[in-house]
Amino acid sequence: MSLDRADVKAATKPHEQLALHLASGMEAVNTVIAQRMASEHAPRIPQVTAHLVGAGGKRLRPMLTLAAAELCGYHGPYHVHLAATVEFIHTATLLHDDVVDESAQRRGRPTANLLWDNKSSVLVGDYLFARAFQLMVEPGNLRVLEILSNAAATIAEGEVLQLTAAQDLRTDEAVYLKVVRGKTAALFSAATEAGGVIAEADATQVQALYDYGDALGIAFQIVDDLLDYEGDPKQTGKNIGDDFRERKLTLPVIKAVALADTEERAFWTRTIEKGDQREGDLDHAMALMQRHGTLDATRIDALGWADRAKAAMQALPDHPLRQMLTELADYVVARLK
Amino acid sequence: MSLDRADVKAATKPHEQLALHLASGMEAVNTVIAQRMASEHAPRIPQVTAHLVGAGGKRLRPMLTLAAAELCGYHGPYHVHLAATVEFIHTATLLHDDVVDESAQRRGRPTANLLWDNKSSVLVGDYLFARAFQLMVEPGNLRVLEILSNAAATIAEGEVLQLTAAQDLRTDEAVYLKVVRGKTAALFSAATEAGGVIAEADATQVQALYDYGDALGIAFQIVDDLLDYEGDPKQTGKNIGDDFRERKLTLPVIKAVALADTEERAFWTRTIEKGDQREGDLDHAMALMQRHGTLDATRIDALGWADRAKAAMQALPDHPLRQMLTELADYVVARLK
Repeated sequence: MSLDRADVKAATKPHEQLALHLASGMEAVNTVIAQRMASEHAPRIPQVTAHLVGAGGKRLRPMLTLAAAELCGYHGPYHVHLAATVEFIHTATLLHDDVVDESAQRRGRPTANLLWDNKSSVLVGDYLFARAFQLMVEPGNLRVLEILSNAAATIAEGEVLQLTAAQDLRTDEAVYLKVVRGKTAALFSAATEAGGVIAEADATQVQALYDYGDALGIAFQIVDDLLDYEGDPKQTGKNIGDDFRERKLTLPVIKAVALADTEERAFWTRTIEKGDQREGDLDHAMALMQRHGTLDATRIDALGWADRAKAAMQALPDHPLRQMLTELADYVVARLK
Repeated sequence: MSLDRADVKAATKPHEQLALHLASGMEAVNTVIAQRMASEHAPRIPQVTAHLVGAGGKRLRPMLTLAAAELCGYHGPYHVHLAATVEFIHTATLLHDDVVDESAQRRGRPTANLLWDNKSSVLVGDYLFARAFQLMVEPGNLRVLEILSNAAATIAEGEVLQLTAAQDLRTDEAVYLKVVRGKTAALFSAATEAGGVIAEADATQVQALYDYGDALGIAFQIVDDLLDYEGDPKQTGKNIGDDFRERKLTLPVIKAVALADTEERAFWTRTIEKGDQREGDLDHAMALMQRHGTLDATRIDALGWADRAKAAMQALPDHPLRQMLTELADYVVARLK
């Protein structure tokens, strides 16, 4: 696919600009994903994976790997393997998350655990993890293997931490940040760092790519958590207050709990810790967050992380991709408007 | 720990002889396992893993890696990492299996999914997989990484295949063999092959180690499936006919289905495919297997695989470990007596 600068300019959203700029690389990534998701022996695997691939998604994580590699002067071929690896780890995580959360919908479609069963989601997720590791071995770069296997451990650790921190009012901002790094930022930062390492970028640039991915991922997750309370359900595909109903301690609530007086604390204990939720509780929770300004404070945190991501980009070479990645950081928090 | 030849001789069972011979290496493996199973951030992880480690088990798989490496003249240190990797993959698989099988007991103790919940078992399993991949990267040997990541994919593929082949009377011996290679033999053969590769053994020896692990694993699983119908419940810890009740198509039943007349086929369709089981059905199933001699035929298959394992050992250097591994193959099928 040829790249037309006019097309790139016409695409208004940064992730669309990235998709156009990286079109031929992403085509190669999609080919690798389709090949490696297949299974000769177990027909259930392509059924489940085809459902997931069909569901689409922006493929942001593999684009980050391709962008980081190209930004540091690499022209292939192994950034494609690493980008596919990152998407496989992400997809495996989604499959297992849906089992853990007992979700019925993802991206507006029934989840695999609902269409087949939890067993298939667990085992096909394991298959994708294993395929990810096979893929990441192929470039023969040990540093990249360390980065990606460390990310996989951080992701799993973050998920377990989230499980035990859920419904526990002692969960503070430090624990929240660990969970967010695990569930989101670890794969973003591994995606960008691995791209830099395969391109043999110098240590400063590799560190900057890590910092960019880390900050972008944290901003992304904080925005997601904020949109749960003030997003437009038509755009987010979620109902306002789902996290409250599921008793999830996200940043706006954590900040409100920290500032709660005795009566407010009793409210959070009843609704989040004990799960005794009644008519009007969500409205009261929103009112408490408004009273203490925690939705605004959360927004400011997200903007701060986006700024860190943009600042990290300054250590990287002048390149159209640097501009696109910088704008991507703005776009992630622009969803808040 | 010093090795006393008299102790080794006094230990009657081959896996006990192996454990004595490999005592100092296994001590190092256990130390690595304890260190790497810990998690600074998520206290649920050490709880679940301590429960599993406490449950014991023979640690046969890591012993195979140490034995293969030492047999080919390797003295460390990386066979310890690989042995721990193999045990981590095995433990992660057990955690996910118990979720998939909805098991309540393993080795006579309540399973982790029962003590905590399915969520913890899924996520702690993922954590152990990730830890396994971190560990296997450390020796810096790309061929070993290929072997172990391929094994992980074969295991997951085999598990999915087992899920879809279950309760389907079209499951034949070829499908059974694929499932058995996935669920058991792939990790045995990866354990022995990786040991040979880290020892820089020549291609013939590495192939022989692979063949040994593959055949030993298949023999091991066939024996397990046979003991389900004719083992001593006190020794196996399982009730006679559990597989029948769970509608699992294992070798003795597959052979009986292949030889069934119309009336017998209707029986298998009702009990296995439709799951309509009544008083006396297990006795009737046993009688059909006796009538067609499929328990004996299964025993002969197991002995054949044990012979293949022993034959493979002949390509390896003369060494006390070669003798122990050869006897181990006999011991695996001797459980049948």
